[in-house]
Amino acid sequence: MMLDWKPRRPDMLIDPFGLGRIVQDGLVFRQNFSIRSYEIGADRTASIETLMNHLQETAINHCKSAGLLGEGFGATPEMCKKNLIWVVTRMQVVFDRYPTWGDVVQVDTWVSASGKNGMRRDWLVSDSKTGEVLTRASSVWVMMNKLTRRLSKIPEEVRGEIEPYFMNSDPVVAEDSRRLVKLDKSMAEHVRKGLTPRWSDLDVNQHVNNVKYIGWILESAPLPVLETHELSSMTLEYRRECGRESILQSLTTVSDSSVGDLVNVGEIECQHLLQLEEGSEIVRGRTQWRPKYAKSFGNVGQIPAESA
Amino acid sequence: MMLDWKPRRPDMLIDPFGLGRIVQDGLVFRQNFSIRSYEIGADRTASIETLMNHLQETAINHCKSAGLLGEGFGATPEMCKKNLIWVVTRMQVVFDRYPTWGDVVQVDTWVSASGKNGMRRDWLVSDSKTGEVLTRASSVWVMMNKLTRRLSKIPEEVRGEIEPYFMNSDPVVAEDSRRLVKLDKSMAEHVRKGLTPRWSDLDVNQHVNNVKYIGWILESAPLPVLETHELSSMTLEYRRECGRESILQSLTTVSDSSVGDLVNVGEIECQHLLQLEEGSEIVRGRTQWRPKYAKSFGNVGQIPAESA
Repeated sequence: MMLDWKPRRPDMLIDPFGLGRIVQDGLVFRQNFSIRSYEIGADRTASIETLMNHLQETAINHCKSAGLLGEGFGATPEMCKKNLIWVVTRMQVVFDRYPTWGDVVQVDTWVSASGKNGMRRDWLVSDSKTGEVLTRASSVWVMMNKLTRRLSKIPEEVRGEIEPYFMNSDPVVAEDSRRLVKLDKSMAEHVRKGLTPRWSDLDVNQHVNNVKYIGWILESAPLPVLETHELSSMTLEYRRECGRESILQSLTTVSDSSVGDLVNVGEIECQHLLQLEEGSEIVRGRTQWRPKYAKSFGNVGQIPAESA
Repeated sequence: MMLDWKPRRPDMLIDPFGLGRIVQDGLVFRQNFSIRSYEIGADRTASIETLMNHLQETAINHCKSAGLLGEGFGATPEMCKKNLIWVVTRMQVVFDRYPTWGDVVQVDTWVSASGKNGMRRDWLVSDSKTGEVLTRASSVWVMMNKLTRRLSKIPEEVRGEIEPYFMNSDPVVAEDSRRLVKLDKSMAEHVRKGLTPRWSDLDVNQHVNNVKYIGWILESAPLPVLETHELSSMTLEYRRECGRESILQSLTTVSDSSVGDLVNVGEIECQHLLQLEEGSEIVRGRTQWRPKYAKSFGNVGQIPAESA
């Protein structure tokens, strides 16, 4: 890694309102977030949605700080002219440790080229006090025409706007090259039907926000898994958008390759599919889960007496 | 109002991490929040849940800063010894103006006596730049025994802990003394059935957080109201708690007294009931809605051309 990730406490005072700023020769955007009481769940650790929201927020603020925000939400001025928007096609996240209430996390994000017509955005989330890495994420984005809803090449004018911001670095999460299988409704062991966007789930484009998809995917994970395990990593493939009228189903299958039974210690792997009731795939996903209290990196530890 | 509400910009630098601090001779707790992209909805303004979360967060941080937090979530050391927790019984909120993405709001909160065995907590939310009041809220809390789940008087030892923090002030929202009617299932025009807490809706006590109730209540408001109006005030009466196994129904009736039809300009009043499927009441509520773009204080303005 070519970057110097040591936390810089005195610098943080430059950002008293927590709105973030550009660091590292203008290529990395950094923002701190304190974890609030309403962002933690039953485990007293920050919820997945909170962590994913921090990623989304820094991505948008990065564009804004770099002067790359046109009238749209994350689109550059040239993209706005051409009715282009960014859509995420792939997201990989590794959760090493979950922060808890009162912790301050530092989120660093930057972009790179991804193939000929894509952009990769990486994030590195660390504990602002100790510098310990908490979460790593890597995502691929392409352009879509807002009117036709078809994918588009990156026009030269847009490339000229964004290329100066590209870093030349490897992804922070190595690409998971295993194919994501298409789950079959008849195969899926756990199904949540009739999921409908709430009014409050819609973003300013009247679309369901990517982060909500993740909530729905985890929704169909079996309760014994949620109770005994924590998400250690996930790979998501976004295949179609859904709107406010959509009715969704969330399917989950626990893989045969999972070690141990659900309520016991052992790593668990799940396959997921979020689809429209009529069958169109919205998101395919794969998640890995480690036993709670196992600490980071799959080091299986003891369950504290109070929760045993 | 005995307090001086002028915003004090230079002070804010004392709180670079946005964790808040005690001001006003030790009786008022103040914390700033910047509104993030994922906290705004389709209208580009902060969601009700976000605003209510800010109230919850400052209430807890107030107790923490005052050294009144035992092992529990908002309970004092003496309360912990006696297995007592705070439960909210009534909440009144007035939304004068909704903040938008990037705004920094200042939340002030303080407590007062409420009758013999209650505590009132007030909040005043203002724009940190201009000092304009955005939201006012007033709530009543009583004590419950965590084991028996029965209400309790305030024991003398607890009173000794909390009384030094009581302010002698009028509520920031005048009490709405109109009775909240019990909605009948057969009467209710809008019903959302089968609402179940998601794993992520549970707090550290494995209970559904008060703020989630509000989301469910607004869930059954008719879409034409949500599309054309914004919540201007609400009164809630919390009658029973619900746990993770609960299945709920959210009922709403638009009052006859509402002016104009739903999709037209005019103030709207709704009655709400959140209940268990078997009938037990969880929350009764009443909400007032004003046309969008009407600005504050019911001043009906013009709808901008782009959204007409």
